[in-house]
Parts: sequence; C-alpha cells; structure tokens
Amino acid sequence: MSENRALPRPNVPNLDAILGVAWEVLDDGFVRVVDYMGDDNAVVQAARVSYGGGTRQLREDRALLRYLMRHRHTSPFEMCEIKLHVRVPMDTWRQWIRHRTASVNEYSTRYSVAINRAQTTAPSEWREQSVGNRQGSGGKLSEAIGNSLSAREHESQILAREVYEERLNQGVAREQARKDLPLSTYTEAFWKTDLHNLLHFLSLRMDDHAQLEIRSYAQVIGHKIVSVWCPWTWQAFLDYRMESIALSAPEAQFVAAISGGDRDLFQRIGFEQGWTLQDGTAAEKSRERVELEEKLKKLGIMPPWRAR
Amino acid sequence: MSENRALPRPNVPNLDAILGVAWEVLDDGFVRVVDYMGDDNAVVQAARVSYGGGTRQLREDRALLRYLMRHRHTSPFEMCEIKLHVRVPMDTWRQWIRHRTASVNEYSTRYSVAINRAQTTAPSEWREQSVGNRQGSGGKLSEAIGNSLSAREHESQILAREVYEERLNQGVAREQARKDLPLSTYTEAFWKTDLHNLLHFLSLRMDDHAQLEIRSYAQVIGHKIVSVWCPWTWQAFLDYRMESIALSAPEAQFVAAISGGDRDLFQRIGFEQGWTLQDGTAAEKSRERVELEEKLKKLGIMPPWRAR
Amino acid sequence: MSENRALPRPNVPNLDAILGVAWEVLDDGFVRVVDYMGDDNAVVQAARVSYGGGTRQLREDRALLRYLMRHRHTSPFEMCEIKLHVRVPMDTWRQWIRHRTASVNEYSTRYSVAINRAQTTAPSEWREQSVGNRQGSGGKLSEAIGNSLSAREHESQILAREVYEERLNQGVAREQARKDLPLSTYTEAFWKTDLHNLLHFLSLRMDDHAQLEIRSYAQVIGHKIVSVWCPWTWQAFLDYRMESIALSAPEAQFVAAISGGDRDLFQRIGFEQGWTLQDGTAAEKSRERVELEEKLKKLGIMPPWRAR
Amino acid sequence: MSENRALPRPNVPNLDAILGVAWEVLDDGFVRVVDYMGDDNAVVQAARVSYGGGTRQLREDRALLRYLMRHRHTSPFEMCEIKLHVRVPMDTWRQWIRHRTASVNEYSTRYSVAINRAQTTAPSEWREQSVGNRQGSGGKLSEAIGNSLSAREHESQILAREVYEERLNQGVAREQARKDLPLSTYTEAFWKTDLHNLLHFLSLRMDDHAQLEIRSYAQVIGHKIVSVWCPWTWQAFLDYRMESIALSAPEAQFVAAISGGDRDLFQRIGFEQGWTLQDGTAAEKSRERVELEEKLKKLGIMPPWRAR
Repeated sequence: MSENRALPRPNVPNLDAILGVAWEVLDDGFVRVVDYMGDDNAVVQAARVSYGGGTRQLREDRALLRYLMRHRHTSPFEMCEIKLHVRVPMDTWRQWIRHRTASVNEYSTRYSVAINRAQTTAPSEWREQSVGNRQGSGGKLSEAIGNSLSAREHESQILAREVYEERLNQGVAREQARKDLPLSTYTEAFWKTDLHNLLHFLSLRMDDHAQLEIRSYAQVIGHKIVSVWCPWTWQAFLDYRMESIALSAPEAQFVAAISGGDRDLFQRIGFEQGWTLQDGTAAEKSRERVELEEKLKKLGIMPPWRAR
Repeated sequence: MSENRALPRPNVPNLDAILGVAWEVLDDGFVRVVDYMGDDNAVVQAARVSYGGGTRQLREDRALLRYLMRHRHTSPFEMCEIKLHVRVPMDTWRQWIRHRTASVNEYSTRYSVAINRAQTTAPSEWREQSVGNRQGSGGKLSEAIGNSLSAREHESQILAREVYEERLNQGVAREQARKDLPLSTYTEAFWKTDLHNLLHFLSLRMDDHAQLEIRSYAQVIGHKIVSVWCPWTWQAFLDYRMESIALSAPEAQFVAAISGGDRDLFQRIGFEQGWTLQDGTAAEKSRERVELEEKLKKLGIMPPWRAR
Repeated sequence: MSENRALPRPNVPNLDAILGVAWEVLDDGFVRVVDYMGDDNAVVQAARVSYGGGTRQLREDRALLRYLMRHRHTSPFEMCEIKLHVRVPMDTWRQWIRHRTASVNEYSTRYSVAINRAQTTAPSEWREQSVGNRQGSGGKLSEAIGNSLSAREHESQILAREVYEERLNQGVAREQARKDLPLSTYTEAFWKTDLHNLLHFLSLRMDDHAQLEIRSYAQVIGHKIVSVWCPWTWQAFLDYRMESIALSAPEAQFVAAISGGDRDLFQRIGFEQGWTLQDGTAAEKSRERVELEEKLKKLGIMPPWRAR
Repeated sequence: MSENRALPRPNVPNLDAILGVAWEVLDDGFVRVVDYMGDDNAVVQAARVSYGGGTRQLREDRALLRYLMRHRHTSPFEMCEIKLHVRVPMDTWRQWIRHRTASVNEYSTRYSVAINRAQTTAPSEWREQSVGNRQGSGGKLSEAIGNSLSAREHESQILAREVYEERLNQGVAREQARKDLPLSTYTEAFWKTDLHNLLHFLSLRMDDHAQLEIRSYAQVIGHKIVSVWCPWTWQAFLDYRMESIALSAPEAQFVAAISGGDRDLFQRIGFEQGWTLQDGTAAEKSRERVELEEKLKKLGIMPPWRAR
C-alpha cells in the first residue's frame, strides 16, 4: 500500500493560464477550456496503478507513455478528462454529437430564445464539390459567383430569423418556433470527454477528409489545447496515430515483393487485388490503388506501374 | 452444461408480420422495424443464464420478468435488440441522437442531395408557449393566426430550398450547400438499440414533458412495436416505470403524517420543505408542490392546504 | 458570449484536504481520492450552459440542482468526475467491474506478482444464508462454528499462496501461476467515473440487497467522499433517489382506493394482482406483496389484510 | 421513401445450422451462438441507409464493405449483433469483462452453488515466464516439473472446493462461502455485442500478446463463428486490421530514407529515435526497435544495422 497522506492536486500551469480563454473559430464560434483533470503523469501513474509519486526517471515515464500509445493500450489515457465550452453552428454540431463517449449539455432552444447568429460565408469561401471524393470539397468558386451566393445566403438567413421572431411575437412555443431556423444557427454546449476519446475525435476530425468547419475546431483543440495540456501524449499521438501509415496485409506483401525485386510475385499480387492488369500496368483507377500510391510515395517507393 | 445440439432461432411471428412496414408519423415521417433479436423469453433465459429451454411454467417466467423490471435489474433486457429505419425532421433528430447508447447510420447530406421535404405545420397546429413550463407548449393558437404562420412557413422553406439548389447548380460542395437548410428538413436513419435502452428512451420521450414531435415517434414505437415484440415486458414497463409514482423521502414522510393524522408533523414537514407556510396554508406556488399535489391526487389524498 | 478572460480552476477545499488519504475498508482494503473535476456549482453551470459565473442566488442554484435530480435530468451530473484508488478483494471487484461506464486500470498479475493478501473472516463474521432472499445473507453463525470456518479459511488461503509461489519459483509464467489464487485475493485499481454514474453505482451498492463487502466500499464513497465533494447533490440524491419510494401503477391505484375507503375497489385490485384472496385476506406470501407492505408501512397505511 | 411492405427477416443459413452448438475450448469451456441479427448485407444497407433491397452488384457491395473497414467507418458494423453463451474460467472472464461495450448476464454464485469445475493444467502445459515480455509466456516447462505442478494444482483445487462445501453445509451464505474459490473456477455467461465491438475484442484477444486462454476463445469466435456469419467482413478484418502493419511517422521516414538510399538521413533518424548509435550500428536493445525489425522483415527490408 502506498503512503497515506494528503497530496496536492495535480495541475498543469500552462493550461491553468488559459482556463476560460476563448479561441475564436469560424466567424462567430469559439472553444474554451472550462476545467480538466490529470496530465501526462496521470496516464503513467494509472498504467502502473501506483499512487503517491515515486522515483522513476522522466525518460522512463515518457517511454512508457509512448509504448502505451503505440500499442493502443488506451485505458490509461481515459484517466485524463477535459471539459470544453464551445460555440458552433448546428450543422457542425450534428457531426460533433455523433461521438457518443462524451458528456454534453447543449443550450436549449426549447427553454431560451435561439442565439441570434448564423454562420456566414464570405464571397471567397464558397467551395466546389470535389470530383474524386463524393463527400468532400474541392477548390474555391470564383468571387463573382461567391458574391451572389453570399447575398442569397444573407437573404435566406434574414427571412428565417424574421419568421422565427414573428412566431415568438405571436406566442408560438419556442420548441415549435425554432423548427425552420437554418442549420447554420450557432449553438453552445459544454462538452466533456476523456483524453483517449478526445484523441479519437481528433484523429477523425483533424483528418483531411473531415469537413473544413469541424476540422477548424479540431485543430484548435489539438494544437492549442491538448498540446499544452499533455505534451508527451500529443507528440506520441502525432507519431503513432495521426501521421502513421497502415499497410494492409496485401499491401505489405506487395511492398515486400518490390523490396525483394520479385516481379512475378508483385505482379501477381497487384493483379489479384485489382490494382494492376495481368501485365503489371495500372488497372482502371480505384480508390484503394490511389491510397496505395500515396502510401508508397511516403515510403519512397515508386509504384511499379509508374516505373516505366 | 446444457444440451449440445442446434436449436431453431427464436422469433416473434407477430413482429415478423410487420417487418418493413412503415408506420406514418407527422406529415412525412415514418418508423419501420428492419430486424430484431430476442423476445420476452430471451430476457428470462438471460436472467437465468440457462440455454436450451426448460420446463418452467409460463407463469413463473412472467413473474421473474416482472421482478426484474420492478427491481431495475436491467441487464437481461439488454439481451433483446431492435433495428429501426426512421424518417424524422432534423429538429426532432437533434433530440433523438442525444441518446448515446444506440448505433446509428444517418443519411449523409455530404454524400447525397438532401431530402426534398421539410416538416410543415397546418394552420390549426401552431402551439402556444406554455406559461407554467418554460420548455413546453400550451394550447393551440387561433386558426386565423395559424393561417398566416403557415403561409410564412411555406415562404421560408421555399426560399431555403431554392437557395440550396442554386448552390448545387453553381457547383458548391454538398457539405457546404446544406448549411442553411431549415431544421425541419427530413432526414433518415437506421437506429439500433437494445430493449433496456429503448425503454429508457420511451420513458423520457413518451412523457408529457417531451416535445409533441418526438413523442409522436415514441408512441408509435411503444404502442405499435414494443407491445407486439415483447408484450410481457411492455406491460411490466407500463406498470412499474411509465405509470409508477415516485415519492421523495420528505414526501413519503408527509404522506405518513397525513395518514397518521399527525397535523403537527405534516405541518412541520410542509413548512421545512417550503410547500406551506408555518400555519399549514399553501406557500407561494412552486414546481415541487405542484408535482406533489398531482401525486397526492393520484393516491386519493387531499392536500391539507386545500382541505379547508 | 460570456466574458473572455482566464478564470481560476474550480476546487473544493474540503475535498482537497483529504486528497490521497486512504479510508480503510474491510480487513485490508481502502479507498482514496486521487483527483476530481467540478463540484455542485459545475452541475448548475452546465445545466444553464453558462460560463464565467453570474449573480444568481445560492438558493436558486440549489433549487435548480434539486429539480434536476428529481426529474432525472442526469446529464449535468456527468459534468463532475472523480478518480479513486481502491484496494478490494477480487471477489468484490468482480461485482464492481460490472459497472461499465467507468474508466479502469487494474493492477496486473500478468506483469507483477499478485498482492500477498487475501480477505480473511473473523470467527464472528460468518453470515448465514438468508431464507427469504436467495441471494443474500441472514444473521451470523455461532462463534464456535466460526472458529472452525476461519481456521479452514486460513488453511486454504495458505495452501493456495504456497502453490502460487512454488509455481513462480519453478519459473511458471505469472499469467498462468495465478490461476488458482482465491477470489479473496486483494487487487488494486484506479477507478474513474462521473458523478451521475457514481450515484447510480451507489444507489445499487449502498442498497440493503447489495453484498456486505461492496456495500462497505459504497458507504465510504458516499458518506465520506461524495457528501464532502458535492453536498447539495448528495442531499438531493438521498431525498429523491436513495430514500424515495416508488409505487407501481397498481400499487398507486390500491392506495387511492384505500384512501377513498372504497373496499370493493381495493379488494378487486388486490385480488387481480395476486396480493389477496377474493375476500381480501392475504394470499400466499409473495415477494411483491412483502415489498408492498414495506411501502405501505412507510406511508403510515395499514395493509387491509392485516386490518382485522 | 422505400417501398412499404413486409419483408422477410434476414438470416444466414450457415450460421442457423450451428445455432446452439457448443464449440469446446480449454478443458471444460465452450462457446455457442444463441442468436444473432444482421449479416454482411446489413452492414452495406446501413452504410447506404437504404432499405428494401436494390439492384447493386455483389461486387460493388463487397467493395463498399471493404472500403468501410479500411477507413474505419465503424458504425455500419455496429448494425450486426451476436449473442453467445460461454463457459470460461473466472480468471479468463476477468479479462473478458474488461470490454465494456457488451451486454452481460453471468451465472450468479450468490444465487446458486458455484459450478463444480476448475480449469486444470496437464503436466505438459505449464508455461515458462517469458524473458522478453514481462507479461507473457515463453516455452513449456519440462514434464517432470509439470507432473509435480499438476499434482499440487489438484491438491489446492480439491481443498478449496472442500472448504467451499463445508461452508455451505454449515449454512454460510453462498455470497460469502465462495470467497476462497480459485480463479480457475468455471463460470458461464450470456455475452452480447455488436460486430464492430466484437472485431475490436478479437483484434486484441487473437493477438499473440493475448494470454493463451482467452486467445483460445477468441480464435474459436473468429474462425468458427464470425467467418461463417459475415465472411466478407471477416476477410476485410484480416486484411485491413489483423494482419496489417502500422508504421509510425518516424518509421515511415526511416523506410523512405532507406528506399531512397539516403544513408545520412536514415542514420540521423535512427539516432534521434534511439534505435541506433551515431554511426548507424544498433543501439542498446529496445522494444520499439525490436518491433521495427519485425515490420521491416515483413516488408522485405534489411535493417541497416544488420546490413554489414
């Protein structure tokens, strides 16, 4: 049994310094830290189920923490908790709330009048539908088009708000009056989660495939908050999760065949997987082969179908 | 160890008969059962951790199931699972999705064009803000007012859709184009949960305090689906949860003092709790006393402050 | 938007004073608070989604918190979090770990040698099998019998430990060597959960039907820790949850019929529910009627079948 | 909206054929399927939020399912559910129960007499403590030593059971009597989880680092059950999860430097990461470098520190 005396509460001075400070996101959103529990050391302590401090070297503690991250021993990272106060468009919030392992209290538009702000889009910020990615954005539309889109956005938002306020003035219940507010309307919430689940959220929402809006929030949470709160964890997360590369079983076999110079083998694998034709030239473009090319590029390996 | 031979899969013929049939809800919504697992008997079997059937009496099984419900032994009710396909306004979905212990796949408006239907309100269906309940509705507004509200609803929904389609026509990414759609826009989802968590959902969403819209869905799920799927569980749920009365510790002491005719005691309790003045007459109206009056009424007990 | 400046971290001085102090439980167990987040005020703040403090009266805050508890608005109570370091027999831990909404790191007997302590039972502490409750304990066995039982307990624990250590000495892997350790062997864990889920744990484990061992832990957590950490919440929990009485729909109708003096009605209800015979006298004893009698007693109402 | 008529319940004939059939595991354990919901097609259907079937090609469906697995779009895999009846030593169950996203009913030794079987170890099955892995097993101990270990195991289990039965005979409550039973005592449970969480369980418990006992169960569940229930999912799981290779950011950079023949660069990375000394020769052995060597081997790349 560890020693039995009162110990001070762990804290992170760098995070204490910014408690309550709102980071601006989008045109009228924000993220601020309300409170937190634990730090990098709490992760290590939980992994060891040891309490009351000890004499391990910092270097050993950091190596242990990195080992935990590398091997997805996730439970010690659940031992840290953070509570944020956020202001986001409801459209973004619809994505955010899909993460179920968090505690949430959202501003109630049954109880109170809806916040009188909707997210607006500057003429230069309208994004084209991506061609390659059915659920993504491509480049920006021209400012000429953007001007007219922004004007119509304004018109639509103004009408929706007018209609909302007319309803309230006529005595309509708030819970019903709100029904035609635009998804761009801002809401606020307290959102509390643990470090493990926060990192999972960030791994999905900081990703290039995440929508720009929620990605903006995720980047603030990651780079401005988690990196200050738990710097070791943050670095390990970048190294072993965010910037890691996963090769599937067939991809790894393919790489091994290339490394070994075994043309017959890699051609056979490529053909079986549908990446190449029987002669080793590129098959019809597929998402999986595009992803493989990106991985090979990061590994400094020339895709054989390009190596002509 | 129980017998080792293949057994048929349990099924509920009455539920099989309506698999896939959509129950209409609101003006364009629906709920249908896609699939399910287990039945009343699966609850009992799990509670006994017995497999392969047996010779217990139905009466005993039913008594056990009711005991489990009464004592909130909730885990056996998790052994039944149901998957629904629903179509709901996003505004209602925002409340629905707050229940975290469910699996969800929602129609993606990043990937596909948003459903071209928004929930509309007939002139006779506009509800007044409740006075007593800051987050509820009261009676209906006059049809004269309703007519003008419905006309403006139409105008606002039409403009929002026009703007959405203009954006798509200009090539704006679907994920961005959708941002000013009204909350009343219909969405669809697969929603899967277990019987215990479904009953918890129903206990909150069939309640009088739930918003009419989500209550409409909850009532269909309860009365049309759960009552057919697991009739014993449904009756036990009504008896022990939905229609039960909870008396707080002070309320129970108050009732006991009234039953015992101990005026001094119940006046003291009423005063301490802020329900009455020192002389036993009603104190300023409070939510808690209103609730207590309702409970006393159901128990056939006259509130002493009315007994004059 | 609330003010944008750094605010101090909320803390509870009375809890800070006992951080790390181990409360002894059973013969060699303990519970200590490692860290926490939030307090009564954090519950209120989350319910209002307001940040940065304000000028509400304490009385209003407390009334809101009690309203939340009374109406099972549970999400604001999730906004407080606590982390405990516990030492418990594995047998008790098996029950504890059934609560899934918590984060856990347990001492690893794959990685380290098992703790060399098993829970022992004094001769006066052996409990009889309960007759009325198949899964409970009744009174104590005689000390004469207790002496022999404790002697045999010692013998069995000693042999199990010897065998364990022989295996380690022979080079058996720790993960395999441990397999015949007694369930009474102590383990340690970090256990972190939020206030809502902690209260749910306490409502089940402080209950008379909980096993004495885990009840001992629950009582320390409730009375020594939660009552200090969040005193308003604790009192509301006792009033509205722990010491409340739930009447089922038939029970409430029965009470109303008694209150109204409607003998025909309450006899009919009693008969339909199987509590009484057709003439109103007690039917064969059943769990449900025993429970009803206890409730009626607390409400100062004589069960009619006893009122002869 | 999809068509509105009753549809038959989806089923998997190959799984129906083995419902209830117990697969033997360890010396007296088993796993059997009690019931299930959904199949490979249910995953695809949920991802598309489409109901009522359609005319897509099987090839497209399979490609979509593999895409979902590859990109960790996990929610559609939650749409399948399975319920198992298992018999396991409590020691193994302690690991099993750590997976929180499952529904569980375990045989109660408060309510019933404990199962009279404990897991036994044949003389040839005693495993040495691993040297490299503090929490693993190495090779087998000699049969001579094994004979004596198995004899002592028997002695210890016999005494523990005798003591247990003496207590029951003396009238000790079952909940207390069980406290010194060995961890090897068999228990039974109903365990229900969804396909996503089951695959997560399998990815951890089929892994080489999992303890042999729980691995035995995981292999039966994976190879005998999931592979029959959802064959597409199973193959995708093997390709993209179970047999995939993850390279951390530094590892990927290291591989790229080797592929590019940039000795200065890979020596610098190796040194910075602590894998090699400044001259590129192997640094002191570390877990991370051992893991890297294994990955390089699978990719057909010679670790430069061995390339002399």
